Amino acid sequence: MIKIALGQFEIKPGHPDLNTNRMLEMIQSAKESKADLIVFPEMAIPGYLIGDTWEQNAFLRDCEYYGKKIIAASDTIAIMFGNIAVDWTKKNTDGRVRKYNAFFTAYKKNLIQSPASPYPFIIKTLQPNYRAFDEERHFFSLPKLADELKTDIADLTSPIDLCLNEQTLRIGCLLCEDAWSDDYTFTPLALINKNHDVDLFINISNSPYTLGKNNKRNRVFSSHAKSNNAPFIYVNNIGIQNNGKTIYTFDGSSTVYDANGKIIAMNEPYTNQLNIVGIPLEGEPSLPAIKVNEDTDIANIYTALRYGIKNFLQDIHMEKVVIGISGGIDSAVAAALYASILPPENVLLVNMPSIYNSNTTKDLAQDLAKNLKCLYTIMPIQDSVDTTVNQIKTTPIQNLSNNTTFYLDVSSFVTENIQARDRSARVLAGIAASFGGGFTCNANKSETTVGYSTLYGDQSGFLAALADLWKFQIYDLAYYLNQVIYKREVIPQETIDIVPSAELSSNQCVDEGKGDPIKYPYHDYLFRAFCEHWNRATPEDILTWYKEDLLEEKLSCEKGLIQKYFSTNKEFIDDLERWWNLYSGIAVAKRIQAPPILAISRRAYGFDHREAQNGAYYTAQYRALKKELLK
Amino acid sequence: MIKIALGQFEIKPGHPDLNTNRMLEMIQSAKESKADLIVFPEMAIPGYLIGDTWEQNAFLRDCEYYGKKIIAASDTIAIMFGNIAVDWTKKNTDGRVRKYNAFFTAYKKNLIQSPASPYPFIIKTLQPNYRAFDEERHFFSLPKLADELKTDIADLTSPIDLCLNEQTLRIGCLLCEDAWSDDYTFTPLALINKNHDVDLFINISNSPYTLGKNNKRNRVFSSHAKSNNAPFIYVNNIGIQNNGKTIYTFDGSSTVYDANGKIIAMNEPYTNQLNIVGIPLEGEPSLPAIKVNEDTDIANIYTALRYGIKNFLQDIHMEKVVIGISGGIDSAVAAALYASILPPENVLLVNMPSIYNSNTTKDLAQDLAKNLKCLYTIMPIQDSVDTTVNQIKTTPIQNLSNNTTFYLDVSSFVTENIQARDRSARVLAGIAASFGGGFTCNANKSETTVGYSTLYGDQSGFLAALADLWKFQIYDLAYYLNQVIYKREVIPQETIDIVPSAELSSNQCVDEGKGDPIKYPYHDYLFRAFCEHWNRATPEDILTWYKEDLLEEKLSCEKGLIQKYFSTNKEFIDDLERWWNLYSGIAVAKRIQAPPILAISRRAYGFDHREAQNGAYYTAQYRALKKELLK
Repeated sequence: MIKIALGQFEIKPGHPDLNTNRMLEMIQSAKESKADLIVFPEMAIPGYLIGDTWEQNAFLRDCEYYGKKIIAASDTIAIMFGNIAVDWTKKNTDGRVRKYNAFFTAYKKNLIQSPASPYPFIIKTLQPNYRAFDEERHFFSLPKLADELKTDIADLTSPIDLCLNEQTLRIGCLLCEDAWSDDYTFTPLALINKNHDVDLFINISNSPYTLGKNNKRNRVFSSHAKSNNAPFIYVNNIGIQNNGKTIYTFDGSSTVYDANGKIIAMNEPYTNQLNIVGIPLEGEPSLPAIKVNEDTDIANIYTALRYGIKNFLQDIHMEKVVIGISGGIDSAVAAALYASILPPENVLLVNMPSIYNSNTTKDLAQDLAKNLKCLYTIMPIQDSVDTTVNQIKTTPIQNLSNNTTFYLDVSSFVTENIQARDRSARVLAGIAASFGGGFTCNANKSETTVGYSTLYGDQSGFLAALADLWKFQIYDLAYYLNQVIYKREVIPQETIDIVPSAELSSNQCVDEGKGDPIKYPYHDYLFRAFCEHWNRATPEDILTWYKEDLLEEKLSCEKGLIQKYFSTNKEFIDDLERWWNLYSGIAVAKRIQAPPILAISRRAYGFDHREAQNGAYYTAQYRALKKELLK
Repeated sequence: MIKIALGQFEIKPGHPDLNTNRMLEMIQSAKESKADLIVFPEMAIPGYLIGDTWEQNAFLRDCEYYGKKIIAASDTIAIMFGNIAVDWTKKNTDGRVRKYNAFFTAYKKNLIQSPASPYPFIIKTLQPNYRAFDEERHFFSLPKLADELKTDIADLTSPIDLCLNEQTLRIGCLLCEDAWSDDYTFTPLALINKNHDVDLFINISNSPYTLGKNNKRNRVFSSHAKSNNAPFIYVNNIGIQNNGKTIYTFDGSSTVYDANGKIIAMNEPYTNQLNIVGIPLEGEPSLPAIKVNEDTDIANIYTALRYGIKNFLQDIHMEKVVIGISGGIDSAVAAALYASILPPENVLLVNMPSIYNSNTTKDLAQDLAKNLKCLYTIMPIQDSVDTTVNQIKTTPIQNLSNNTTFYLDVSSFVTENIQARDRSARVLAGIAASFGGGFTCNANKSETTVGYSTLYGDQSGFLAALADLWKFQIYDLAYYLNQVIYKREVIPQETIDIVPSAELSSNQCVDEGKGDPIKYPYHDYLFRAFCEHWNRATPEDILTWYKEDLLEEKLSCEKGLIQKYFSTNKEFIDDLERWWNLYSGIAVAKRIQAPPILAISRRAYGFDHREAQNGAYYTAQYRALKKELLK
């Protein structure tokens, strides 16, 4: 039995000084608890998502400096931690200095080296380059080093020997992705275990929360432990990290799997926690399995959103928010969500009616504010909108090449967008600055997918906390907030029941049931196929499935919807092309200028889902299919 | 002598159908001109910057389909072209289908294979992963394949034998980065030439314009030709490509270097051009060198800007623009630039004075409009700004937890930003929609670096065409527009002479010489060191250079400025920290929501310069230095 402390802590990316202080505190506690070894996450000192800060040599030297402080603290305890490792004598493939994503083991103030490695640290073998991950951009991977040294990669990954508590343990060291090798040419676990009898695997990670990922990890890592007949310890960090456009939460959930693959310890998610676990080694009696909560999806989502928002507000030093509430579902959910995080006097709800807003929604906005007991105000926009429309219509435009003048016309569509911008860029931005806070963007993922929003209008704000949730998840969250968080109807049931509508013209009247052009029960799933499916669906795929009557099954939407919504092939195709054109066209332009999005799904817009403003494209096969179906 | 056609054409990224049609037209012309071989750029069929569209299998199949059309056209001419190559039986490291960035050679309707390669195409060896490049994210590189096959990489890169005009040529095939190997472990040129006597090297590229890159390429590629004693042909595309946040121009400039390294042919930059060149082979008389224009920097910049703007407008189907003109330098340059691209009746200039705008600048705006003979209007904002300020100040805020009310105060700083948003999000956006166009963002790189702008105000627009130019380059461009493009003073000299000022408060009065807080002659160069220097400078580097009296030299700014601007160490440090805090803090938040930026420099903001919203950081060494200097 050895006592291992799982050092799950909140990493502040780009702040080695703060991270090191937290680590030193945890090391002190672990020493006091007589732990043999303390393990910290991958990149514990620098943090992980720091953009191109890796190109600042002063920052790299600083990480080395703080790394030495951690090593110096290893007098009476072994310490494992992730840090950037720099070889100042060699080049990266970008021509800058050589950097490794490295796993350090320090004991008695010395680093412990793997026998055949040229360096006193273990180098990451598998570097992810999908979603938000850009490791090849900055770090030199172990396969590249093996090539350069003309060495067998297995020699460079061999386990380290660590003498703890009077026994020598052979430890296999893994960095995050190294234990997720299904899609790679190398299988680090097999390489490590090739010629060695590993006593224990330790995986240090810096792994963002993604809906459904924890269940999968438990399956994969449990199987690693079992098939290698050795305990497997996973240490992950908490906190939030971002790459500008996309903000990730890190849930920690550090876990110990015993040699049978049983989970015998798990840190609380999203909690700073030094968890000291006695690990039974070969021949020692095993510990009972612990129960792992299978939270419902929406509870997990709420926890991640709450943590992400709370931490983001702290990081940008924002204590107050302003939320425009229309009486509709998205802004109501945003209000209830923020009001569950901030004190009510720091949440200012603003209703901004024009002539197109119904008494129904105005009353619902007021009810919501009362239920949440937040600050509330009503700032009508009609006068200002009229002023803008009149100013544009009545100010002469001079043509200076022929000295004539003319006037611009303002269409009703243009007036819709003027209203949206008046609300956000004029009222909310002005109020937020006066109130000393920021204003929120309440967009959901469905409208973000097709740009059903106004730039500098409802598409603006300091954070789009709900923009990785489909409309059906917004409704789920509404129920969850009422039933579980508030335990009363803070979001009025009528807000849930009315048709979702922008109320920007007389064609969008909720009382007459005139709502959004998005048919959420179908389009939520269609849009999801465009952006979240593993093999991204295009009109060619959709039309093929439609033709083969497989569409509802492939999209996992309700049966019968296609027939309900579309009576002819032409109607179906027109609808498909309408949304695909928007998704690939103007919606990209809007996403380029959208606020940061809090990531929940396996594919969030922004840096996670990279895109170019190249316009819609239809393959030759799609065009042939379409022709056939329209014959 | 063989006749090679350099197929330099405008690639439309993400549109294989259009690209293939253009290629087929050029192939037809080349056949009519009896060329032996036609060479197209890298990724000629799909285009290169297409975000994660590579994850759409339907798109990949479409690229294969169009590739076959090109191969079918090779009956009487050899064709070399770049395309994505898919191995549907293997996996990429992201778990999706295996994709190669490939170089195809087709002749007599067959593909010509390199002897030891398992595929009928050449695979890119060096995949760039810096700046805007993300090749490891999608493409499986040749070194990885060599590892997988346990083959020597040299075997996989061996030249192809192509029998043309009754002689067999041994051709070394390179994809773009393969010829820029200084920073890599592999040197493809050396590998190709290892056991073979190569007659000719052909490099197909998809290489964006960067200020100063063409001169460097001519040095490097000329040296390749000379040291290998073989002609070297470089074929690059034209057009624009983007990855959302950043837009690149591609200048083509396809070039033929003879076996002595002399440039014997070069395509016109930014021009669709089938250039048919007779290439002297070993023993044949050499051709005279052609003169390569060494354009001045600002002429190059103007050409790139003009081309980029013109093409971007076409791509997004925008024919008209609205430009807010203040009488200041940035908007004047923007107006003169756009007016040199679009007909004057499609350019609407708008002056939007408040009480803080001087007669000086109002008159200058009018003079500019008259000089350019564009459309012009004056839409004052003071009434609307007063309305907004009053509405916010006089509307009661209800506290629904205790049923009290209070009022918000609107500070003069908040009023500054209200003015900026009123101009852009209210007036310009409304006018642009009514006019049927977009409005421009006139921000330069200096203010973009430190966020000296208002979000949803002057930071907004459909394109930030000048945001990769430092303030000194804006002035250079003003002179260039007057002297070379218009050959008269369209930008009034007084606009160039007055202090740059936002005119948003009485503290920013141009008539009293009260301008921006940015001291451009020094800060332009300081900011450039933060973001454009190869090893990115941080306060630690700046303070070290300051202490050692090396700062002006390291920054390449004017001598004597530091002494002129700062009388004490404290003043210097306060200034440094002020800008570093902004650069790493609020400016990141603003850049996240900024419009796309047209890239000119070696490091443009956006996708080229990745960053996280992590706040400012100061290294331990910086803090020690600062302490020492403030002692």
